[in-house]
Amino acid sequence: MPTYKAPLEDFDFLYNEFLDLGACAELPSMAEASPDVVEAVLSEAAKVAETVLQPLNAIGDEIGCRLDEASGEVSMPDGFATAYRDYCDSGWTGLVADPDYGGQGLPSFVGLAVSEMINAANASFAAYPGLTLGAYEVIHHHGTDEQKATYLPKMVSGEWGGTMNLTEPHCGTDLGLLRTRAEPADDGSYRITGKKIWISAGEHDMVDNIIHLVLARTPDAPAGTRGISLFIVPKFLVNADESLGERNGVKCVGLEKKMGIKASATCEMEYSDAVGYLIGEENRGLAAMFTMMNAARLVTGIQGLGMASAAYQAAVSFARERLQGRSLAGPKYPDQPADPILVHPDVRKMLLISRASIEGARALGLYTGVQLELEFRHPDAAVRRQAGYWVALMTPIIKAYFTDLGTEVANLGMQVHGGAGYVRDTGVEQFARDVRITQIYEGTNGVQALDLVGRKLIANQGENLKAFFTPVMHFIGEHDGQSELAEFIGPLKDSAQLLQDTTAWVYQHMSKNPLEAGAAGTDYLRLFALTAMAFMWARMAVIACRRLDEGGGKTVFYQAKLDTARFFMTRMLPETTSLAAKVRAGAGPLMDFNDEAF
Amino acid sequence: MPTYKAPLEDFDFLYNEFLDLGACAELPSMAEASPDVVEAVLSEAAKVAETVLQPLNAIGDEIGCRLDEASGEVSMPDGFATAYRDYCDSGWTGLVADPDYGGQGLPSFVGLAVSEMINAANASFAAYPGLTLGAYEVIHHHGTDEQKATYLPKMVSGEWGGTMNLTEPHCGTDLGLLRTRAEPADDGSYRITGKKIWISAGEHDMVDNIIHLVLARTPDAPAGTRGISLFIVPKFLVNADESLGERNGVKCVGLEKKMGIKASATCEMEYSDAVGYLIGEENRGLAAMFTMMNAARLVTGIQGLGMASAAYQAAVSFARERLQGRSLAGPKYPDQPADPILVHPDVRKMLLISRASIEGARALGLYTGVQLELEFRHPDAAVRRQAGYWVALMTPIIKAYFTDLGTEVANLGMQVHGGAGYVRDTGVEQFARDVRITQIYEGTNGVQALDLVGRKLIANQGENLKAFFTPVMHFIGEHDGQSELAEFIGPLKDSAQLLQDTTAWVYQHMSKNPLEAGAAGTDYLRLFALTAMAFMWARMAVIACRRLDEGGGKTVFYQAKLDTARFFMTRMLPETTSLAAKVRAGAGPLMDFNDEAF
Repeated sequence: MPTYKAPLEDFDFLYNEFLDLGACAELPSMAEASPDVVEAVLSEAAKVAETVLQPLNAIGDEIGCRLDEASGEVSMPDGFATAYRDYCDSGWTGLVADPDYGGQGLPSFVGLAVSEMINAANASFAAYPGLTLGAYEVIHHHGTDEQKATYLPKMVSGEWGGTMNLTEPHCGTDLGLLRTRAEPADDGSYRITGKKIWISAGEHDMVDNIIHLVLARTPDAPAGTRGISLFIVPKFLVNADESLGERNGVKCVGLEKKMGIKASATCEMEYSDAVGYLIGEENRGLAAMFTMMNAARLVTGIQGLGMASAAYQAAVSFARERLQGRSLAGPKYPDQPADPILVHPDVRKMLLISRASIEGARALGLYTGVQLELEFRHPDAAVRRQAGYWVALMTPIIKAYFTDLGTEVANLGMQVHGGAGYVRDTGVEQFARDVRITQIYEGTNGVQALDLVGRKLIANQGENLKAFFTPVMHFIGEHDGQSELAEFIGPLKDSAQLLQDTTAWVYQHMSKNPLEAGAAGTDYLRLFALTAMAFMWARMAVIACRRLDEGGGKTVFYQAKLDTARFFMTRMLPETTSLAAKVRAGAGPLMDFNDEAF
Repeated sequence: MPTYKAPLEDFDFLYNEFLDLGACAELPSMAEASPDVVEAVLSEAAKVAETVLQPLNAIGDEIGCRLDEASGEVSMPDGFATAYRDYCDSGWTGLVADPDYGGQGLPSFVGLAVSEMINAANASFAAYPGLTLGAYEVIHHHGTDEQKATYLPKMVSGEWGGTMNLTEPHCGTDLGLLRTRAEPADDGSYRITGKKIWISAGEHDMVDNIIHLVLARTPDAPAGTRGISLFIVPKFLVNADESLGERNGVKCVGLEKKMGIKASATCEMEYSDAVGYLIGEENRGLAAMFTMMNAARLVTGIQGLGMASAAYQAAVSFARERLQGRSLAGPKYPDQPADPILVHPDVRKMLLISRASIEGARALGLYTGVQLELEFRHPDAAVRRQAGYWVALMTPIIKAYFTDLGTEVANLGMQVHGGAGYVRDTGVEQFARDVRITQIYEGTNGVQALDLVGRKLIANQGENLKAFFTPVMHFIGEHDGQSELAEFIGPLKDSAQLLQDTTAWVYQHMSKNPLEAGAAGTDYLRLFALTAMAFMWARMAVIACRRLDEGGGKTVFYQAKLDTARFFMTRMLPETTSLAAKVRAGAGPLMDFNDEAF
């Protein structure tokens, strides 16, 4: 079974050397987030992940969630409820939440780091507090003061859970088709009726109440996405004195059997005249829900990263221990019956692809986390707006690229294990099954690519793009011509240029033919992601070079950063040239194919 | 649940228009293989696959194999034994086997086509006759007349099964480490003692006897791979009158729980003083086993292809039926609530990557099957040798590339399904789990790459390589300058040139540093595979162009071939430039990394 060791040294490097936290200095969230506090929080989270959640991961996979069809109750695998109670008691559910409602108000990028560790240890478990936080954010942004006072404190404490109810059997991506009805009642509330599917954490036995956020249509709502409203539908109604009241008309009527994340309850929910409370304005429900969706998309990316990290660690352990064959250059450990497979170039390549993907993504995720914090909490509107451009652009990229690399790295981790990787007891194939959903939910990666090309490139008069290219070009300008950095700056420069040229090509062609946006889609997104990764790796290389020159210690760590940066530039970034060529092949080869002939 | 429709139209095209069967005309196997017979065989096999085996696929996954630990008996999921009996009674187990032992003696490329269909329908089921055929081949090539007479007829009829026992807990890839002992007995037989793991079809209740082929060491054998001998160890000893005798000292003591192919029994086998019969010479066991391994590697590639084909079909059905969103170019079916997702460029891209991979691989597999037939059965030694060069070169490429595309296409099939793809009832995630093993067993794909670069490129004084480049260059020469073919010939020419240049680079660098072979490895193999695929697609495009010009019908079919060829050239082949760049990055970025820092 895999053991997990949280990457605290890397987090330390990123927080204290890599991230530019200067712009955050004025934020109230930073008042509590001194380097010492952040370090203490992360090392506590590491302990929870390593010692409480990780040991439950295989049990969750083996036992899964069980539905009692008569009562509609869902029971969690052994040990989950206790672990969840501990998790709440230690304050993890309130880590980044508003202190007005009992939260600790830490910056969201600290939350992302914790989220990576929790997901690495036990992705099924992570879904429950993750969904609650998403629902919390929607109510926090769009709820009335009364709604906030009623629901938020117990969601922050973890006593109550939260869910998001979007999908129906006939509509997932295309929410305009949704049919769940909301009839106004005399008391200002609504009666919700309809069926929702694939509702994560829709029902379980770890909380006293579950606050469902449900998209539905009022009787006179316009068709399509402009007629969708958002409702709070608690499992138990809440009395005026905050005690739990009647059971509401919502019930879990089915539990999906899935490829993975088997301890994450994926529920079919039936709403029958359930009491619901409008949140925000009528017919503006989708916009409100998207507050949560964007954050959820970033966190989904972090899930991919977390599982990749756990799979990589398992692969490294195996590669050190497994003795098999000899180095092509002659026995490296002649006193042993064979060399560890770590000597083989192909095994090292799989590990380095994993490592470069994970550490680059971790840097990009936290860099974006800082922008997210600025976007939502900075007092200056211009700063908020500017940070928002970066976040808008990077959200689909992080969601899609991080989850793609999650699947890739989990599969490389299996591959390093050889036959042992396919056997369930080894535990590494679970990562490949669990992580696979992240490429699909919260908007498939194809939908992310369309969001990037069809929406984010065009939006804000090009400011989104500028928010990326300006710091990249500034950074290149700063270091161009420094010979010891040329091996990092050169490839970044080429890649940025290629991305700019390809972007111009896509712009031009999709203005004539909107299908070109979809045709460029995933290839363009990956080209963008690799360029953003090159930016991160070049930045990390600059720091590592400086530290090595200074000779202040941690030589192994900085040298590994430099070597991984070099690996990324020479062995991974070259993919960009193929991606650009594929994009320029255009929509023709896709659209000309006869529908009947598929 | 997916339904499967065998690709008979494509087989028909390949056999009757694409493959050059002229060189096979003299073979006895071809005497029975007239176009009519082949068509009848394939359409019968299609029926078995579609109506008998495919409906059992999900049941096999759900129930799996069960071991009774006391008796060591393994029971198959419901329906498998009956299906297996029908399969044998219809003669499928003897399809390509020697008529002297009851087989039908059809050419092995017909066997490959049948194998694709069986694997598409039910990969777990396919393992049982597949392993038996492998063991049959070893005994047929290396056994004494008495051994052949004793074992082969009942293996050909399917009454008895066969297995290959290589792996032990501490050795898989590196068989030199194996420890199972073979003590000579007075009667000329041996007593085998040791433990073998991951033995597919090692024990089950569909056959009367199981003929295990076991690698072991005699007492005075030299260390390493030169001291390994091969033994026949039947589950039940066979009496002189051919009836079954005593139970032999071999027992299944464990059954692996795996990610997929759950109805394929993966057994831990314990040999305790089991009676074994030497096959071939002492200490030459590995070479004898490799007779089987090479054929097994081709078939493993075909497994990947088969499952890819089934996943693609499921994805196409879903893409036609699922209404969601509108075409970016405006509603295509305005009378429906939404367009089928087949209108979206990204969905089409996933389907066309799948289609181009599958049809190109099918062509390459059968093309290689013809060479295999020539290699093993042609009366002229020069023809056999020449065909052997192609087979030697293509075996690792087909094993690795086809299984990589199997996983890729199965995952694309899931992705087209969105959330439904992750739910077990949909059935498509089973393909992704089942196919994953094909990248690992019969030598991991990293081992295949090393076989290609470190062995096959160098062997036979470069004749292997020539066997590929000569027909490619001849074909290019034949069609270069024909303007309507330029879009196919041009990219093939560029890719072949790039492959030649990269090959020269690899040659040169690995002669100085053997680690360069491993570093080039998988990237070089994929570059080679894509070039071979380009050769197949260009050949198919030439035929399709001609047929369309002639206007003799089947326009939709030929147009689809042409469009898929175009898609391959513009949207898939460009990957070669990145692969070449990665290869040229060399071993440095892999080997310089500090072992301690992983």
